[in-house]
Amino acid sequence: MKILKYMLIFIPISFIAKFINASPSIMFVLAALSIIPLAGLMGEGTEEISFYSGPKIGGFLNGTFGNATELIISFFALKQGLFEVVKSSIAGAVIGNILLVLGASMLAGGLKHKTQTFNKKIVDVSSSMLLFAVIGLCIPALFTHTVSPDLLNTRYEGLSIVVAIIMLIIYILSLVFSFYTHKDLYTFNSEENTTAKWSLNKAIAVLIVSTILIAIESEFLVSGIESITKSLGLSEFFVGIILIPIIGNAAEHSTSVVMAMKNKMDVALEIAIGSSLQIILFVAPILIFISLIFTPMSIIFNEFELIALIVAVLIANRVSSDGESNWLEGVQLLAVYFIIAASFFIL
Amino acid sequence: MKILKYMLIFIPISFIAKFINASPSIMFVLAALSIIPLAGLMGEGTEEISFYSGPKIGGFLNGTFGNATELIISFFALKQGLFEVVKSSIAGAVIGNILLVLGASMLAGGLKHKTQTFNKKIVDVSSSMLLFAVIGLCIPALFTHTVSPDLLNTRYEGLSIVVAIIMLIIYILSLVFSFYTHKDLYTFNSEENTTAKWSLNKAIAVLIVSTILIAIESEFLVSGIESITKSLGLSEFFVGIILIPIIGNAAEHSTSVVMAMKNKMDVALEIAIGSSLQIILFVAPILIFISLIFTPMSIIFNEFELIALIVAVLIANRVSSDGESNWLEGVQLLAVYFIIAASFFIL
Amino acid sequence: MKILKYMLIFIPISFIAKFINASPSIMFVLAALSIIPLAGLMGEGTEEISFYSGPKIGGFLNGTFGNATELIISFFALKQGLFEVVKSSIAGAVIGNILLVLGASMLAGGLKHKTQTFNKKIVDVSSSMLLFAVIGLCIPALFTHTVSPDLLNTRYEGLSIVVAIIMLIIYILSLVFSFYTHKDLYTFNSEENTTAKWSLNKAIAVLIVSTILIAIESEFLVSGIESITKSLGLSEFFVGIILIPIIGNAAEHSTSVVMAMKNKMDVALEIAIGSSLQIILFVAPILIFISLIFTPMSIIFNEFELIALIVAVLIANRVSSDGESNWLEGVQLLAVYFIIAASFFIL
Repeated sequence: MKILKYMLIFIPISFIAKFINASPSIMFVLAALSIIPLAGLMGEGTEEISFYSGPKIGGFLNGTFGNATELIISFFALKQGLFEVVKSSIAGAVIGNILLVLGASMLAGGLKHKTQTFNKKIVDVSSSMLLFAVIGLCIPALFTHTVSPDLLNTRYEGLSIVVAIIMLIIYILSLVFSFYTHKDLYTFNSEENTTAKWSLNKAIAVLIVSTILIAIESEFLVSGIESITKSLGLSEFFVGIILIPIIGNAAEHSTSVVMAMKNKMDVALEIAIGSSLQIILFVAPILIFISLIFTPMSIIFNEFELIALIVAVLIANRVSSDGESNWLEGVQLLAVYFIIAASFFIL
Repeated sequence: MKILKYMLIFIPISFIAKFINASPSIMFVLAALSIIPLAGLMGEGTEEISFYSGPKIGGFLNGTFGNATELIISFFALKQGLFEVVKSSIAGAVIGNILLVLGASMLAGGLKHKTQTFNKKIVDVSSSMLLFAVIGLCIPALFTHTVSPDLLNTRYEGLSIVVAIIMLIIYILSLVFSFYTHKDLYTFNSEENTTAKWSLNKAIAVLIVSTILIAIESEFLVSGIESITKSLGLSEFFVGIILIPIIGNAAEHSTSVVMAMKNKMDVALEIAIGSSLQIILFVAPILIFISLIFTPMSIIFNEFELIALIVAVLIANRVSSDGESNWLEGVQLLAVYFIIAASFFIL
Repeated sequence: MKILKYMLIFIPISFIAKFINASPSIMFVLAALSIIPLAGLMGEGTEEISFYSGPKIGGFLNGTFGNATELIISFFALKQGLFEVVKSSIAGAVIGNILLVLGASMLAGGLKHKTQTFNKKIVDVSSSMLLFAVIGLCIPALFTHTVSPDLLNTRYEGLSIVVAIIMLIIYILSLVFSFYTHKDLYTFNSEENTTAKWSLNKAIAVLIVSTILIAIESEFLVSGIESITKSLGLSEFFVGIILIPIIGNAAEHSTSVVMAMKNKMDVALEIAIGSSLQIILFVAPILIFISLIFTPMSIIFNEFELIALIVAVLIANRVSSDGESNWLEGVQLLAVYFIIAASFFIL
């Protein structure tokens, strides 16, 4: 992960570029390149803090800060009213995690280890939670798309808030489940990294600085979306579903691939599925609540996002059901991702 | 189940109310409150008779009378031409069983017992039967909704009758499967309740009287649907998909929860999935045949019902696939149910 | 399989009929009856050659020639611009394999053997490949059907070629998987038939002659499609999705049923799922490439085909997930097939 550290150079470059009034498209690219290592740094800071806070608060911090980058980017996108970008980035984070990250991990791990196994029991709990969560999140949209538009009035916001509250309650209950009532299920990766590399003060300082910098770069990024979509002929939708999830999760993704190569598929799967769960149960509802400050955003995904979400969740459930993975499974997940990306790009 | 007995008081109240010409909305509420204990009584009567008839005929009686209440209510709804109510109550019975009953059972059972296990083999047979049955039942509707309406003529009835016949054949074959060719699979709950509480005569009398009373109350109920939907601003659809299944199955539901709390998840799952199967393979085709007496009803579900059915069946298959349940799984099933109900209510 | 040999008599009959200028409908029927035994002969020839070529090349030959009949029929259909027939025959081959062949095999096998088991591990690999492959193949169509038509321009061909290339790459990689990196998984049916019945020369001659005859008969068949659809009031779609897959695969189907009756469900499942995989990963992309010679065909399936494909793949995954089968499961697969066929016929 040395390369991530070197990428921090893009932060000062982006500030200079802002100072000399570079075009929004250039700012978009520089901000993207800056956010990637910053998200990694924030993740490291959170992990270090959790050594001092003990596993329970640490797990909660990891869960909550794990998607902070996406939350911050989406916050600025909401502020600018880019609802399409925000909603597609939720769906994009899920397919990115399940298809791109898990696919790459299974491929990289499978090339080194013939057949990789993982703890089916834990993954089963996560993947069925993901199924229920995605179904819950998608039902309002599924119903909406089957009603002729003129029969509908603007009661979406109410329904969106109800769904958001239910999702948050389940998120909190799932923390109760994994840290209290069923904590013995989740002991698989506790042996490693038992000592902190950093002092608590350093960890907190890194977390604070990286959060501030991500916020600034996210504003650069979001301001550049309109310009980059025009100059490259992309849709806002493509930016949301493909580019933003990759930018926000690149650091986490590389961790997953490294873990898979070390034959720790449990961790790789937990990153991919757990991260998707947090997006749906935590990030999505928080964004709906935040949107009430600006303009209320509905939870109504468009058909593309629905298909992408449902495909991702079906595949996650299938993949987890046999407790094994190999390189060909990885290739197939990547193939589905590329076909989705190509369809979005072309259509 | 003491409370169910006390609810029988609503039967004389409903008769008095009818006598003094109470409004249809009040009749709807009183009939609903009367049907709940009557359905429980009918179930008890059937079970008692099965002690005298032996397991095979008993199993058949249980299967067939288990949904008698729904059949009777639907009969009067069909007579009044309330097709929407009838069809949505079929879908509603399935989601009620899989999401509400099973969710409540898993939650109640899971709060008492950390992890509950069940016989994956039997549940697998039932849940894959449910998948095939729902797919078969939904295919005509799935095809219909994708054809532009003007290309379609009125050949639905023919197709509906074909599907109904196939469903009934599978129902009969499934009885052959469970009572003859593979009866050894189904021995899990035979040890308990080996003696009858009632005499055969009493059991038959209870069955006959409760059936007659349910028929009368069902007519009160159905006559009140139009009035209650208007006065409460509900759609007929909401009444069919949420209210009627709860009224018809409340007694059975409470049995399932009690069984789960006794750590008999096999029985709870068999009630939820088995009852859904009977709705699709037995009640739905019988209603199509009955409708031929009045106006032929097609098997074409609307998109809401399709989504609800498919969601329920996917979740049933997921839940049954690991042979275990816990309270969080129960919460998630209930959450999906509430999101569906809220969507129906709001949209 | 004696009856297949006797059916070869239809080859000279069809030539005589052509000579005396029989009507295209009669030619369709005679060609269909000739192709059935020829496809069986071609399969036998390929198997014999594989005894001389060793298992690796043999496996490749079997995989590639296994669907040669469908490829040849589709080639002539493409030449005549019958895109609907070609695309629906791809979907039809998959549902034919999964529902009709597997259903018949499970029923026939299950009537002789109470519960049949199969190697869940191998079938799991195939059935999850099938899930990924079908999702990949369907995504362009799923996205297209949710976009309003006027927003779309004619960039389908580009997307279709991208998907076709990805599918072919996965096909080649799956051969690498099963013949190199994970060949030890696939050793289940290597003990039997270790000696060739025919000389290598005879096997090659049979293969060449049957290929030529299939090509000629396919031209007769395709030329008769228009006439037979008119005279019997069928749609081209029905011919493609129901009739052509049965004609092209009848020989293979009977092998599957025979294997199931011998309690070799592994082989029966491998035929059904493996053959479906070859259709999607090999036949479909090759047809897209061939269509570039005539008029480019898009990969955009219609809604019926999508539903049929998705239903088939869900059922294949469900069926394979428990490692067991029985007669009732077979009946249910057949029931779904008949409901699909009846819906296509009536709608």
